[in-house]
Amino acid sequence: MAVAEICLFPLGTGSPSVGGYLEPVMDVIRKSGLKHRVCPMGTVVEGSVEEILELVKACHEAILKAGAERVIISLRIDDRTDKPLTIEGKMRV
Amino acid sequence: MAVAEICLFPLGTGSPSVGGYLEPVMDVIRKSGLKHRVCPMGTVVEGSVEEILELVKACHEAILKAGAERVIISLRIDDRTDKPLTIEGKMRV
Amino acid sequence: MAVAEICLFPLGTGSPSVGGYLEPVMDVIRKSGLKHRVCPMGTVVEGSVEEILELVKACHEAILKAGAERVIISLRIDDRTDKPLTIEGKMRV
Amino acid sequence: MAVAEICLFPLGTGSPSVGGYLEPVMDVIRKSGLKHRVCPMGTVVEGSVEEILELVKACHEAILKAGAERVIISLRIDDRTDKPLTIEGKMRV
Repeated sequence: MAVAEICLFPLGTGSPSVGGYLEPVMDVIRKSGLKHRVCPMGTVVEGSVEEILELVKACHEAILKAGAERVIISLRIDDRTDKPLTIEGKMRV
Repeated sequence: MAVAEICLFPLGTGSPSVGGYLEPVMDVIRKSGLKHRVCPMGTVVEGSVEEILELVKACHEAILKAGAERVIISLRIDDRTDKPLTIEGKMRV
Repeated sequence: MAVAEICLFPLGTGSPSVGGYLEPVMDVIRKSGLKHRVCPMGTVVEGSVEEILELVKACHEAILKAGAERVIISLRIDDRTDKPLTIEGKMRV
Repeated sequence: MAVAEICLFPLGTGSPSVGGYLEPVMDVIRKSGLKHRVCPMGTVVEGSVEEILELVKACHEAILKAGAERVIISLRIDDRTDKPLTIEGKMRV
């Protein structure tokens, strides 16, 4: 299992408040079935690298559908093979 | 007030477990006096951009002092001038 | 077309010099057929979001195969629907 | 010497084209005296960690002065103590 943080920023929305574009993205993450945690600077998910990349694709589709004309997607994945990584485990540094 | 996520990754440490290098960094963040929250993929802090950059400098010094020969520092700051940003506020999307 | 930057960092290697782990990743990018540019802090690629995510998956497999026990993958995608994005175009700010 | 990539994204602008906000930031980087290279996904600079953080502060001030109400600043620093890092050196993987 890998742990990853996903952040999306819509550009050119006319207002600095972009929550309306992120709500449908959060819906996609909730419905993905992947374990996740909402954090102040992004949402953290737990899954295989393949599952995480599939989820990023779905988040991208959701924010375009929500009307974003341009989006920056920032993703950081931490994966290790020597022992399991979990959201819980990574909270203990 | 801005909100930022700080992550440090020591390279070339010989073991994929790097917590020993991050403990002194967490100490620096705790002692900074800035409001912060430990998240699975990094630590989120709240402060002025100037305070956040000062803290990054101190984290960098701490990880070198802990013995890291090479370090990747990843920082993402969210700052807005039209209304206050807080760690708590950013949890509500 | 989207433009994205891909960076991989193996953790826990015996030396701070990690080029040997990145060579097979560069091979994967070169063979992907996607337009790309090597930059000092990562490799920039041009393609659809789907193609870019496929490439990230292949890069992940390549670095594990090269012997990395733990890897941080950092990806930032810029995608817009109102006009085409290209590596060349993004060099002009 | 460390090498770092700096990217700024203004949010809430009226158009997805944000070059007008980034021109003053590029001016600040050019006038900083630090060696730098414009890349498709951000600008790469070479300097001490302290110089780089000072530059980020100046870029932040420049984009607010250019009228951005909200800005995401993404910074990734690579620093090593065992041998010098340069923009040129990092082009060779």
